[in-house]
Amino acid sequence: MQILDGKLAAQAIKDGLKISATQRVIEGKKAPHLAAILVGNNGASETYVAAKVKACEETGFKSTLIRMEEDFSEYKLLEKIESLNQDPDVDGILVQLPLPKHISDKKVINAIDPGKDVDGFHPVSVGKMVEGIPTFLPATPYGIMLLLEHYKIETKGKHAVVLGRSNIVGRPISILLSGSGNPGNCTVTICHSHTKDLSSICQQGDIIVAAIGIPEFVKVDMIKPGAVVIDVGITRVADPSKKSGFRLRGDVDFDAVSPNCSWITPVPGGVGPMTIAALLKNTFNSCIQKN
Amino acid sequence: MQILDGKLAAQAIKDGLKISATQRVIEGKKAPHLAAILVGNNGASETYVAAKVKACEETGFKSTLIRMEEDFSEYKLLEKIESLNQDPDVDGILVQLPLPKHISDKKVINAIDPGKDVDGFHPVSVGKMVEGIPTFLPATPYGIMLLLEHYKIETKGKHAVVLGRSNIVGRPISILLSGSGNPGNCTVTICHSHTKDLSSICQQGDIIVAAIGIPEFVKVDMIKPGAVVIDVGITRVADPSKKSGFRLRGDVDFDAVSPNCSWITPVPGGVGPMTIAALLKNTFNSCIQKN
Repeated sequence: MQILDGKLAAQAIKDGLKISATQRVIEGKKAPHLAAILVGNNGASETYVAAKVKACEETGFKSTLIRMEEDFSEYKLLEKIESLNQDPDVDGILVQLPLPKHISDKKVINAIDPGKDVDGFHPVSVGKMVEGIPTFLPATPYGIMLLLEHYKIETKGKHAVVLGRSNIVGRPISILLSGSGNPGNCTVTICHSHTKDLSSICQQGDIIVAAIGIPEFVKVDMIKPGAVVIDVGITRVADPSKKSGFRLRGDVDFDAVSPNCSWITPVPGGVGPMTIAALLKNTFNSCIQKN
Repeated sequence: MQILDGKLAAQAIKDGLKISATQRVIEGKKAPHLAAILVGNNGASETYVAAKVKACEETGFKSTLIRMEEDFSEYKLLEKIESLNQDPDVDGILVQLPLPKHISDKKVINAIDPGKDVDGFHPVSVGKMVEGIPTFLPATPYGIMLLLEHYKIETKGKHAVVLGRSNIVGRPISILLSGSGNPGNCTVTICHSHTKDLSSICQQGDIIVAAIGIPEFVKVDMIKPGAVVIDVGITRVADPSKKSGFRLRGDVDFDAVSPNCSWITPVPGGVGPMTIAALLKNTFNSCIQKN
């Protein structure tokens, strides 16, 4: 078994972006600029946004973190997005999800200029992805594609089984893996809560992508020996022995599964860092398209 | 074996639409209006467009057929689309594909106002479909969904195997069948030219959707006994005994497969009429949203 090391692959991508961003600045051009909006005080969201801002710093990107109170109105949030849409210095806009219940995720995502939609959630971005038109790919599935690319994992003709059909991960990764790009050209089976006989379907997977958010759901008897296992789950599980009070667990029973597969992503340090690297790549691409 | 009779189901939909359209006119409102553009003289395209215009007539819809010579310029076609976008009487715009080689399909589809995109191919329509936001669904997959609905075929928890990943059929039907609507909630496997062991994957399908355009490709030994078989293929096969010189064949070896399955669509008279019914439903929905 070998580790699909997301930290390492993400670092390689960030190193490349840093060189390109620095080169731009030397040439007198603007640095790529990501604006991130965080509403409320969700602990996990705080961590994710902080990691994104830090990654910008490390890569020579400009970042702006806009914090709003939990009870911030939807209207004012939409106004803020519009002002970022209009700001010529901002290349990418990211609204950290989930949002408080009084704010509509869809309305907020639709308000982002598709030309700055570096999270790739706007319907225009999604539609272009489906139709194979160049666009911002959603950050997590794009990160997975970059990870497979970094480790030169052969995907063509492989059977990929995707657990989960969310708009953020399961749905887009099933589209990308079954597309005609590289990585891609997989036969893809998409599974969800209504899937019957999940175990026997998983056992057919040369590649498994687990994105359901249930810690250690994928057991060793569900995996074909030698499969490539991508674990997107990251759940905080109570652990009084830890200073933080929790530990992070993926959707895969790593200890039991890992000896049985060819490649596997750890949690943390697998898909998470790749998501951030993908976000930076989208921001960089947005910047060079505009400037 | 029972026939999924697309003619019958489409007629039921058209009957309902005719009542609603007539009611609108009685109330002094405008009738739904579909504008169809046909470039060149492709024989199959002529037939399809004629059927769509005829269906409009039968349903009390207004239709406008705009014919353009094979060598019509892309620029002028885009201009024509823009004038239809601006025309308040036009509810739906349809450009019959394929277009001549000197015209970009993508550019043309992108030029259609998403609010009049009754073929459901615009990236905005596709993105909304993926994200489960109400929109115009692409006509053929929407027609398949309406057919399953008409015959009350249970889909929840079933394994659907889709052959083909085109943007017009395979990709969107795989998204709709695996979505959380009804019909929907299938486990879906999407297959294509790089799929290995296609036969054994097809044999797992409680539902098979064949959309590859290879006549009689799906043989009886590829089908699980009792499966529901949806045949989207419609290819003209030379037949000197026919006056037209050809006969129509689906992607499924109907004679051999039909005794072995629970439900099957004939070709012609299956998915074809449903595609037209779906197009009319989209046009009607566009009309009532605007007026």
